[in-house]
Amino acid sequence: MSFPTVGVIGAGQLARMMVGPATELGITLKLFAADANDSGAQVCAHTVGDYNEVQSLLSFARSCDLITFEHELVPQSVIRSLEAAGVVVYPRSDSFIYSQDKLAMREKMAKLDLPNPRFEKYSGGTPKLQFPLIAKAPSGGYDGRGVWVINSQAELEALPTPLLLEEKLIFTREIAIMVARSPHGQASTWSPTWTVQRDGICTTTVTPVPELSDELAITASSIALKIAEGIDLVGVMAVELFQVGDEFIINELALRPHNSGHWSIEGSKTSQFEQHLRAILDLPLGDTSRTSDWAVMGNMLGGDYPDMYRPYLHLMARNPRLKFHHYRKEVRPGRKIGHVTLLGEDLVELMQEIDHAIDYLSGAIDE
Amino acid sequence: MSFPTVGVIGAGQLARMMVGPATELGITLKLFAADANDSGAQVCAHTVGDYNEVQSLLSFARSCDLITFEHELVPQSVIRSLEAAGVVVYPRSDSFIYSQDKLAMREKMAKLDLPNPRFEKYSGGTPKLQFPLIAKAPSGGYDGRGVWVINSQAELEALPTPLLLEEKLIFTREIAIMVARSPHGQASTWSPTWTVQRDGICTTTVTPVPELSDELAITASSIALKIAEGIDLVGVMAVELFQVGDEFIINELALRPHNSGHWSIEGSKTSQFEQHLRAILDLPLGDTSRTSDWAVMGNMLGGDYPDMYRPYLHLMARNPRLKFHHYRKEVRPGRKIGHVTLLGEDLVELMQEIDHAIDYLSGAIDE
Repeated sequence: MSFPTVGVIGAGQLARMMVGPATELGITLKLFAADANDSGAQVCAHTVGDYNEVQSLLSFARSCDLITFEHELVPQSVIRSLEAAGVVVYPRSDSFIYSQDKLAMREKMAKLDLPNPRFEKYSGGTPKLQFPLIAKAPSGGYDGRGVWVINSQAELEALPTPLLLEEKLIFTREIAIMVARSPHGQASTWSPTWTVQRDGICTTTVTPVPELSDELAITASSIALKIAEGIDLVGVMAVELFQVGDEFIINELALRPHNSGHWSIEGSKTSQFEQHLRAILDLPLGDTSRTSDWAVMGNMLGGDYPDMYRPYLHLMARNPRLKFHHYRKEVRPGRKIGHVTLLGEDLVELMQEIDHAIDYLSGAIDE
Repeated sequence: MSFPTVGVIGAGQLARMMVGPATELGITLKLFAADANDSGAQVCAHTVGDYNEVQSLLSFARSCDLITFEHELVPQSVIRSLEAAGVVVYPRSDSFIYSQDKLAMREKMAKLDLPNPRFEKYSGGTPKLQFPLIAKAPSGGYDGRGVWVINSQAELEALPTPLLLEEKLIFTREIAIMVARSPHGQASTWSPTWTVQRDGICTTTVTPVPELSDELAITASSIALKIAEGIDLVGVMAVELFQVGDEFIINELALRPHNSGHWSIEGSKTSQFEQHLRAILDLPLGDTSRTSDWAVMGNMLGGDYPDMYRPYLHLMARNPRLKFHHYRKEVRPGRKIGHVTLLGEDLVELMQEIDHAIDYLSGAIDE
């Protein structure tokens, strides 16, 4: 046995954030990038290619011991071709489909007897669900894209089919559970995270979820563990849940490190990035306990100013505990270009400091 | 202002461990490596060259915004040539000399009225100090190399001159203070570290130093801060001290991230590697408070077995809190090839677990 080489399809910020943990563990990381300037490709050995092309991926995979993903865009047919050629791919195509096809996910959750909203597959005609309802493109959507609130038959008919229709829930809040599972079947979760949303984009996360009873935290975690086992997950997964009073309804799954788990870099003994590597390598999983009472993470969204380095002078002086993660992506308004994390005991103060930092970084305020 | 490029002369494990923090901060890192297979060069953009050659270093430096070091081997004359050519080098040559020339260091500490052992420069003849004494080559030694215990005139005369001679102290223990300082003069220390030695090599560190009163911890830290200011340090520095009862005597200085500070990767809000980058970039320094009661670090020393990956299976399962840092250096008996860190509340248990891990990793025990 020697140190393995892990190939990651995709070279965005999630791949970038695997670099540190892989380096420390001594694991060789190689990225399959769309562009040499991708966030992760800037700091890691990489091949540039098109993830739709089986031959390119096969030749990349031959230089690695196993392959994983940092996005959901690789076609199922391509993943299956890699598997058929003997490439070890984690998560497996049979699992990864639930990250790619929202309708397949709903049907699988129903089969596992896990809490779905009411839903139907829609190809035309009058839906069984009543308006207003949620329509989703079965694949390709994220951060609110590919998801519509539909109030009438006319609005519905304006969308391309097939669609997944779901009842429009009145929910208390959105939470996420990060879970990791290895081929051996060892699994672990982190503390549940409150994902604070604005315009369909997660701006801030708070871990653990404030004012959530231990009982409800366990309920939420056991949903995540059941899904992990039910879909034979290998790697880490974000399970996004709607909290509706004392119940949880599954919203979406992402079978990869996820924004909801960024807090774990400083906030947990084992970060989601290290755990993902341990899981896919079938190494024993690390301890996921928290390192502080609270961890608050804020996404840096691009604003009007392209200079994202100068703000360090003010923000680092203001708060020496702020931890910065810059993805070195081109700044565009509203684009996630980094995140900041703060740990501590006083949640209100932490949230104010994080809000200040992300407002300052986006140029919304200047002191 | 945009994200800067930092050039590091040297590409060993210290450069390797800068990769994670630089990536997260968005700072571009380039290494000047002796060999493309160096520990750091395996995971970072690099140029291969000879650090004795001014022209090679100058052309490397022109692609960077500033230059720093991860070892003491670059000749003073070369550093001065870079500075004369307008390259920003931190620490400056005038400071770095105290990391390179032990005699110059002793004379400077004396001038700063800081606690030295009795010492003399020796070029031949009968020394003023009595035997037994310590003889040191003024430059080039580390990990016990270039340092001799001398019992007689005959032994002394067998060594090449010039030498630095020092009284042989009877000390309680060895401790280290890591300190960082920026061009602005902002400075900060971490908790003092007990550096447990075996055969002149540090095997384990314990932070904070057990059974050290707050008063003595402050005394030790203020020695480090006085040195940092007195030599106009920019970057991080390890100040190694002998504790003799309730007093401290300066042993050695290392003007770079140091083995004594490895615990800070997990054990402090800001690691020595992140702080070094902040300091040389004149960014406000990060919070150096500890993240737990105790941090114990053990150096992995090479043993008889070349396979350093397989031990993960046992050690990760045994203790999910162990944090591994593999340098991916060729395994040679006694060579530092990585380190492990454990945080917690029960110091005795932590030390036992770390001792077990390093014994297991070196092949001294098999379960």
